[in-house]
Amino acid sequence: MAKIIEKLKGFRDFYPDDCAVRNYLFEHWRGVASRYGFVEYEGPILEPTALYEKKSGDEISGQLFCFEDKGGRQVSMRPELTPTLARMAAARQRDYKKPMKWFGIGRFFRYEKNQKGRLREFYQFNCDLLGDESAAADAELVALAIDLMRDLGFGPEDFMVRLSDRRIWDDFIAQEGISADDAPTFLTIIDKMEREKPEVSDDHLAKIGTSRAAVSAFIESTADNPLRLASVINDLEARGLGDYVSIDPGIVRGLAYYTGTVFEIFDKRKSMRAIAGGGRYDGLVKLISDGKVELPSTGFAIGDVVITDFINETRSAKQRLIEHLASCGSCDAYVVLASEGRRADALGLIQKLRTAGIRTDFPLGPVKVDKQFKAAEAAKARAAIVIGDNFPQVTVKDLASRESVDLSDSQALEAIQQILSKPPQGPLIA
Amino acid sequence: MAKIIEKLKGFRDFYPDDCAVRNYLFEHWRGVASRYGFVEYEGPILEPTALYEKKSGDEISGQLFCFEDKGGRQVSMRPELTPTLARMAAARQRDYKKPMKWFGIGRFFRYEKNQKGRLREFYQFNCDLLGDESAAADAELVALAIDLMRDLGFGPEDFMVRLSDRRIWDDFIAQEGISADDAPTFLTIIDKMEREKPEVSDDHLAKIGTSRAAVSAFIESTADNPLRLASVINDLEARGLGDYVSIDPGIVRGLAYYTGTVFEIFDKRKSMRAIAGGGRYDGLVKLISDGKVELPSTGFAIGDVVITDFINETRSAKQRLIEHLASCGSCDAYVVLASEGRRADALGLIQKLRTAGIRTDFPLGPVKVDKQFKAAEAAKARAAIVIGDNFPQVTVKDLASRESVDLSDSQALEAIQQILSKPPQGPLIA
Repeated sequence: MAKIIEKLKGFRDFYPDDCAVRNYLFEHWRGVASRYGFVEYEGPILEPTALYEKKSGDEISGQLFCFEDKGGRQVSMRPELTPTLARMAAARQRDYKKPMKWFGIGRFFRYEKNQKGRLREFYQFNCDLLGDESAAADAELVALAIDLMRDLGFGPEDFMVRLSDRRIWDDFIAQEGISADDAPTFLTIIDKMEREKPEVSDDHLAKIGTSRAAVSAFIESTADNPLRLASVINDLEARGLGDYVSIDPGIVRGLAYYTGTVFEIFDKRKSMRAIAGGGRYDGLVKLISDGKVELPSTGFAIGDVVITDFINETRSAKQRLIEHLASCGSCDAYVVLASEGRRADALGLIQKLRTAGIRTDFPLGPVKVDKQFKAAEAAKARAAIVIGDNFPQVTVKDLASRESVDLSDSQALEAIQQILSKPPQGPLIA
Repeated sequence: MAKIIEKLKGFRDFYPDDCAVRNYLFEHWRGVASRYGFVEYEGPILEPTALYEKKSGDEISGQLFCFEDKGGRQVSMRPELTPTLARMAAARQRDYKKPMKWFGIGRFFRYEKNQKGRLREFYQFNCDLLGDESAAADAELVALAIDLMRDLGFGPEDFMVRLSDRRIWDDFIAQEGISADDAPTFLTIIDKMEREKPEVSDDHLAKIGTSRAAVSAFIESTADNPLRLASVINDLEARGLGDYVSIDPGIVRGLAYYTGTVFEIFDKRKSMRAIAGGGRYDGLVKLISDGKVELPSTGFAIGDVVITDFINETRSAKQRLIEHLASCGSCDAYVVLASEGRRADALGLIQKLRTAGIRTDFPLGPVKVDKQFKAAEAAKARAAIVIGDNFPQVTVKDLASRESVDLSDSQALEAIQQILSKPPQGPLIA
């Protein structure tokens, strides 16, 4: 007997309840980005594999869903959006005023090992500011990231931004005599140090001629003297967001292309867990355009998996999500058909309601009236219209107040609009 | 010298202007589906290749972006959503009241030859009604498809629905003695007949023991006697949508899994061009669940490529799109910084405006005041707030009426909300 086909490991089905949570995230992401004056864009899901080779860093390159297409091309399902953005910007940046403030929401693919917070297919919100090399641009991005979290119901007790600048390490690299070839490896070791066993970091650092003690001393000496980051911090303080930020030179980010300011949003309770991150990548557009276009840029990304876990673990954020979900049913008005002989009349009225923008549902075949009211309730409808043998007289019922009124079918639309214009009742939250 | 990396052939970049058109389509799709009481769902983009083998029909199977993943699994980028829906429904249909009215908006992939209206990556709106075998369910779907077109500005002079039922051909298949093995081939020939040279269809039909003359005579005799479709037609007429529909037995649809009612939306001017299509597939969930779940279903899909072409070719629809695009700028309010020394104060006010939900933009560095007003105009801002040396006094300007008012920064939010509450000026349309 054939086996039933199941979805692939690390991939998700979004049943309607799951999709409503996803859409809640999307609405918040879109809403905050729009408030910051960002406009939406999108790229292809499949790109030439060459776009990711060496640009994304070894970790991501090793996780590519890559293959040869029917035309013999080496192609990859995108693991991140930044290389695509750099390609798009390089091709057409002349058409746009600077700064370009762009955001995207889409799906990404990484062949990761099975573990909490990691899936092989996930959504990501990307927000990038291109054509501006100022600290003000970095601050605008960090502020947006903070407001993204606040908009979801997270407060200063839940998360913080750890801010750094990769260039802080230039001095250290020079001082310790680390070679240019070893510099990317060095930054990767720093990136992983917090999650790694001390002995392992020691070993790795020794191989390139430095030590954990030297690194720790440097971090300590630099955290109090954040010259490079003073402008970003001052800007965020002027916005009233200073409390969310702290300097942490240990943050360098895993991706190979970062060149300046870098930051991560951290869960304050689980200090090892990064919720989002980003930074400045002034060289990437130049690299992708083979030296033809210089476009200093800064950006960040947040995935849907960890943030959804974080919402579910955080009281204030979870409450906000529950309230939202409680308010979204599948229709506003339900047409209860008390007499099958009146189906044609009901269809005419249903068409009228829907054309007026009212989300309307009804039974497709004969169903007992009490079951129809149950269906209306399940759909979270706020109004019911009962159509029976005395049509064109119909009964319009407010399903919250339980009040009902008899009127002619031509008055039904207005009566329903009146019910829907009342503020909805608060959701019942346990 | 390395070549600049370009996007793959048949794939698209959605720059902000293109993305705004895409989002316009998505909003209409979502809006109409919601009015019909459908709820959104989504599946993975990558599925086991076995999900598409034989179920989608040979044409789609031959166009799969398929490969072996790093774990040795045979996987495919989805060419359509229906097999995924059938898999999802089979797994959890017990959890949902019937009928399940579900819609999805997502990306799909087919390795097609380069031609107008065909791309290798496209968006599709899918709408399916599961767990109901009635003609009322088919009619609900067809009505939704018609309203989708009307909602975009298309009228009865622009499009029509050609409606049929695959079972109409059962009689013909029996009468002509076409074998069960040849029946799918026969339906494929009928599906292609309108676009194929008559000699070619003749040849193909002769091979399975029938002829074009017999087919034509059958179509003629059946079009006037559409017993199987009378309920669907009556239902649509009760909704006032009868004018959009005609019976056409020649419509059978290319996909292998259709079992009953089938329909296509056609461009009336280019009669060969199908805009959307769908039908009943009562056997698919059973097939995918290996016989365990029976779930009669009906659904349809519309892609973004052909409909976007059709909008651009149709005056009323294009006008509606242009009006929409003209109304969506990248911000509502622009903060003009007349004195760089007041940046910190400006940032504080910007944060306040954004927190109040106002889409606000501002210059990241020193820019001449007239250039800032030009930026405000380019962003289609409706209000400007000028912040200068006399802060906390600021000037709020209505960019449509050109009226301005001086007030304290604490009054700026209210003044801007007042400007934004006015109805926007109509767009300038050439």
